[in-house]
Amino acid sequence: MKDSGARGDSFTRPIWWEGDGPADAVVVIDQTRLPHDAVTARWSTLDDAVAGIGSMQVRGAPLIGVAAAHGVALAMRADPGSLEAACARLAATRPTAVNLRWALDRMARDLSEVPRAARAATARRLSQAIADEDVAACRRIGEAGLPLLRAIHERTGRPVQVMTHCNAGWLACVEWGTATAAVYLGHGSGLPVHVWVSETRPRNQGAALTTWELAQRGVPHTLVVDSAAGHLLGAGAVDVVIVGADRIAANGDTANKIGTSLKALAARDAGVPCYVAAPMSTFDAACPDGRAIPIEERDADEVLLVNGRRIAPEGTAARNWGFDVTPARLIDGFLTDRGLFTAAELPEAFRA
Amino acid sequence: MKDSGARGDSFTRPIWWEGDGPADAVVVIDQTRLPHDAVTARWSTLDDAVAGIGSMQVRGAPLIGVAAAHGVALAMRADPGSLEAACARLAATRPTAVNLRWALDRMARDLSEVPRAARAATARRLSQAIADEDVAACRRIGEAGLPLLRAIHERTGRPVQVMTHCNAGWLACVEWGTATAAVYLGHGSGLPVHVWVSETRPRNQGAALTTWELAQRGVPHTLVVDSAAGHLLGAGAVDVVIVGADRIAANGDTANKIGTSLKALAARDAGVPCYVAAPMSTFDAACPDGRAIPIEERDADEVLLVNGRRIAPEGTAARNWGFDVTPARLIDGFLTDRGLFTAAELPEAFRA
Repeated sequence: MKDSGARGDSFTRPIWWEGDGPADAVVVIDQTRLPHDAVTARWSTLDDAVAGIGSMQVRGAPLIGVAAAHGVALAMRADPGSLEAACARLAATRPTAVNLRWALDRMARDLSEVPRAARAATARRLSQAIADEDVAACRRIGEAGLPLLRAIHERTGRPVQVMTHCNAGWLACVEWGTATAAVYLGHGSGLPVHVWVSETRPRNQGAALTTWELAQRGVPHTLVVDSAAGHLLGAGAVDVVIVGADRIAANGDTANKIGTSLKALAARDAGVPCYVAAPMSTFDAACPDGRAIPIEERDADEVLLVNGRRIAPEGTAARNWGFDVTPARLIDGFLTDRGLFTAAELPEAFRA
Repeated sequence: MKDSGARGDSFTRPIWWEGDGPADAVVVIDQTRLPHDAVTARWSTLDDAVAGIGSMQVRGAPLIGVAAAHGVALAMRADPGSLEAACARLAATRPTAVNLRWALDRMARDLSEVPRAARAATARRLSQAIADEDVAACRRIGEAGLPLLRAIHERTGRPVQVMTHCNAGWLACVEWGTATAAVYLGHGSGLPVHVWVSETRPRNQGAALTTWELAQRGVPHTLVVDSAAGHLLGAGAVDVVIVGADRIAANGDTANKIGTSLKALAARDAGVPCYVAAPMSTFDAACPDGRAIPIEERDADEVLLVNGRRIAPEGTAARNWGFDVTPARLIDGFLTDRGLFTAAELPEAFRA
């Protein structure tokens, strides 16, 4: 099965179609079970997909969109007349996910023009196409970053030391990830590379997911607490910082997982370059700068409870912002599916 | 009992003598049970003190020294001839703690000149004197910082927003703490103040201890993850950063809990002042700059396990440096028991 994410005992994709007949199913790595159990979930019906996306078996903005498209395909197989209802149910699973709505709008638009008898087959092809497009975009992001890693290795002669934050890897996308794409391309072509993984409190996506996906591909890596960035960068242990992005303003100010701005500050102070890796769809030309990006505040219990156990006294107040904004002046470049840009080059990139 | 740390249902000191007769005992807050249980442990014998210090019922450099002095007093009551042996046993409880050895050396020196019959009473007085000196030094640190907080309040008209890191409070000392001293003095005199508490991975001293001790004194505070510092400082939510120190080099470079340097960088970037609060004994005039300060690396399991549960895949490598060095150029001043100094004024302060 050419699209299978499973390869022997390891995985290379978080979602894939299994089988080619009427009993085919969507298989996903159940990310709620990581890092302790690497198990898959099978989605055979729309209900399965709705429950799986809602319960975060899949997460990461690009992957949620891809998964929703697969959910529509499952719905079309059961009832080609249920297009609108299926999209509405899937859209409600994660109300704030932009990619989810983008993927569903595209499926609804394209399928509404297709005769019902052909919708099941077309929907499956479309869902696969959306996945393949993500793979291609992430690969181009990796190609934009790979020359930077090669140049570092040529200069230092040692394994390239990359620091990242949170999980902007293949578990959040389909195959290469964004921040990790150049790392995987380099590792696959024999470039020695080592990744410093920041645990990413409060949800620990670095500790639980980035470590796991790097291990699946055999990329050397070391886990540190988020607070270790200053020490590592100051000690010369990091050659380049590469992070993902949730939204990039027109001037290059970048919203990403809380803590990203501290890494960018420490990198600049240490003279280490800091890159943001994201597809062009993450740029919001209508958003002039970081002040216009709303910062989601999440449940305080994500801070107060770890593995279900309280880490602070009963009654302690906590605040939990999901993202921070890294000013464009601290970002050396953007690795995109249309190549590498500096913030100053963004206006031209938007026009292209 | 004038030295009691217990006041109604709350505590104000982490160690105190209880009683005045032959059954008197040293009482400590058992910090291994915080923040979930606020219970005390009674030390009646040298064995109790050795076990209590070794198991970290008390922690924090100043408090460990004070606790060891109390342990010597308990030993002298049982056997005035056991001075050397008692000091040796106490010194072995926490081999790297500088204050522990300093306090034991002082007890041994002073008591060796005292007739055995008088040693028990003298040792108790001496242990109390060492505790009182810490209280006085921390109070002077607070007096050095209080005018800064008052000036901020006069300028802004709102509660002074202080950010700190780790636990450099009364739980680590005897009464005022270092980083918290100005906060407690201000709060006690009616100055409105609010503390942003950073959880301080991997050992969570901020989440578990600083929140608890601020709550005991009724100081408003909010817990955030370590990564939130950039967002808070960038958003103007912090007026001043005050942290403690483990060791300060002659040029002002400061080793403190890992993550401190990121807060100092973010503060400077946001135009917010950053102060280091410490007694003069924390300055190491023989250490020219931060590069000469060895950074302790601790067990990787502190990163990998939270509440005994693994947060990363089995087999994940982790590194765990306990401290980082904040360069003097990012520190606006040092709040000491001899007043406020800038890094440029340190050479003169050492000569005084």
